[in-house]
Amino acid sequence: MKKVSFQGEHGAYSESAARKIFDEEIELIPCNSFQDTLKTTEKSESDYCILPVENSIEGSVGQSIDAITKTDLHAIGEIYLKVEHNLIGTGKIEEIETVYSHPQALGQCSNFIQSRKLKIVPTYDTAGSVKIIKEMNDVHSASVASKDAGILYDVPIIKQGIENNSNNYTRFLVFSKSNSAEGANDKTSIIFSVKHEPGALYQILKEFNDNEINLTKIESRPNKNINWEYNFFVDFLGHYSNLKISSVLNKISENTVFLKIIGSYAVADLD
Amino acid sequence: MKKVSFQGEHGAYSESAARKIFDEEIELIPCNSFQDTLKTTEKSESDYCILPVENSIEGSVGQSIDAITKTDLHAIGEIYLKVEHNLIGTGKIEEIETVYSHPQALGQCSNFIQSRKLKIVPTYDTAGSVKIIKEMNDVHSASVASKDAGILYDVPIIKQGIENNSNNYTRFLVFSKSNSAEGANDKTSIIFSVKHEPGALYQILKEFNDNEINLTKIESRPNKNINWEYNFFVDFLGHYSNLKISSVLNKISENTVFLKIIGSYAVADLD
Repeated sequence: MKKVSFQGEHGAYSESAARKIFDEEIELIPCNSFQDTLKTTEKSESDYCILPVENSIEGSVGQSIDAITKTDLHAIGEIYLKVEHNLIGTGKIEEIETVYSHPQALGQCSNFIQSRKLKIVPTYDTAGSVKIIKEMNDVHSASVASKDAGILYDVPIIKQGIENNSNNYTRFLVFSKSNSAEGANDKTSIIFSVKHEPGALYQILKEFNDNEINLTKIESRPNKNINWEYNFFVDFLGHYSNLKISSVLNKISENTVFLKIIGSYAVADLD
Repeated sequence: MKKVSFQGEHGAYSESAARKIFDEEIELIPCNSFQDTLKTTEKSESDYCILPVENSIEGSVGQSIDAITKTDLHAIGEIYLKVEHNLIGTGKIEEIETVYSHPQALGQCSNFIQSRKLKIVPTYDTAGSVKIIKEMNDVHSASVASKDAGILYDVPIIKQGIENNSNNYTRFLVFSKSNSAEGANDKTSIIFSVKHEPGALYQILKEFNDNEINLTKIESRPNKNINWEYNFFVDFLGHYSNLKISSVLNKISENTVFLKIIGSYAVADLD
C-alpha cells in the first residue's frame, strides 16, 4: 500500500484531498509541519506527500510555498478540494456558546458566528479542534471542521456548510522523489528570482509570450534572505520535458538569479 | 490633533508604525478588523488609517489586501517597520513554561520556543496577549509582542529580540479621503484583473516596460467571486497624476476587466 504524508491531524482537509486524488487504498501519515511532511517523503518514509498551495478565499499558503521552495521533491499532481466547514459537537445548535477551530476556518464562518454571538477559541488545527471537543464533552462548545473529521472522531455534525462563501476551494500539490511523464494536458510550476533591475521580470514573461506558453498564475513573494527582493512563483501550461518548454526554461535561466522547476503534472478540474 | 485608526489593541505593531510615520502628535483609534479600520476613515471618524500590506517573512497580508480592494480611500503614504518580538511577562526566563501570542508571531519565534520546550497558546493579537498575561499574573506564562506593548501594559520585557530571523519588516500603507500631490520619488499601487486569455497579463506589463516604468511588486490573488480568476496587485515607481503614467494607465484600462488606482505616495526607506 502506498504511503502518503500530510500536515495536520487525521481528519484534516489535506487528508481528504489525498484520499480524493489517489484512487487506490493508501496509508496516511499525519505530520506536524509542512517541512516535516516533505521530509517524510525525502527520507522515503512515505511515497508521496500532499501540501495545500492556495485557497480561493485566502490566497497562497505562504508557509507551504516556503517549504516547497527548499525541497528537492517533484510536484507530480494537483487537486482542488471544495472546503465545507461544519459545526461539530455534542450539543444542540441553540446550546452552543463557544466554537473552537483554526483562525482561518473561524474567519471563513464569521457570518454564522457573529449572527449567533458565539465566543471563539482559536486552535492550531480544524481536525484537532474536533478532538478537543470530544474530550471536553460539553454541550455548550463545538468545533468547526470537515465532515470527515466529525465522522473520524465520531462527534455529531450539528450544522453543515456554515462558511460565508460556498465558493471555497483549496488547491493541493502532490510530491514524490521521481518526475511525472508528459501527458495530454499538463501544467508546470517554477520558482525564480530576477536581478533587481527594470524590465527583468518583463524579459522573462516576454519569453513565455513569444513562445505562446500560457501562464495560469504568477505571484511574487519576498525573499527571506534579502529584504524586498522577490521570488516569483509561476504556473504555466505544458510539461517541462516538452522541447519547446525546455528551451524557453533554458533561455530564461540566463536572466534569473535562480530558477527551480517544482514539477509538471496533469491539470486538475474543479470537481 | 489628527486621528488615525489602526487594527488591533493599543500596543499593536500597526500603532507603532502609525507613530513612526506621523511626526506630529496623533490620536490613535483601535479597530477590530481591517475593514472597520478603513470604515472609520470613510465615515470621517478618523483622518487617516494604517494597514499592514506585506511582511518580509510571511509575504502579503491577504485579508488587508482584500479590504483595500473594496475601499474608496486613497493610499497616501507607505512605511516599513522593523518587527522585533519580545518575551514579556512577570516571571524570570527560566520560570516560563507557556507563551501566548498571535500564531504568526509564535511561528516567527519557533526556534526560541522549541529550544526551551515552551507550550504555546495562540491568541488573536500580539498586544492583546500582553493584556492576558497581565491579568493572569502567573510567573510561568509570558507573551510575545512588541516592546511598545510591554511598556503600555507595564509588563516587564524578559528577553528582547527572540525572533528567528532579525530581517523581519512589515510594510504599511496609510489611507485618507484625499489624494497626495506628486513628489520627487513616488510609488503607485494599483489592482486590476485581466481577461482569462493567453498573453493578457503580458500585454499590460509590456505597456509598463515600453514606457520605462519600473515595477516594484507584482502579485496575483484569487478573485473571490470567480474561482481561480486572479486579481493582480502591482506597485510601480511614479505618481499616477504624472502625464506619462496616466497615459499608460489609460492604455492598460482597455485590456483590464477592472482597474483601480489605490494611490500614489512617497517611496519609504527601510528604517
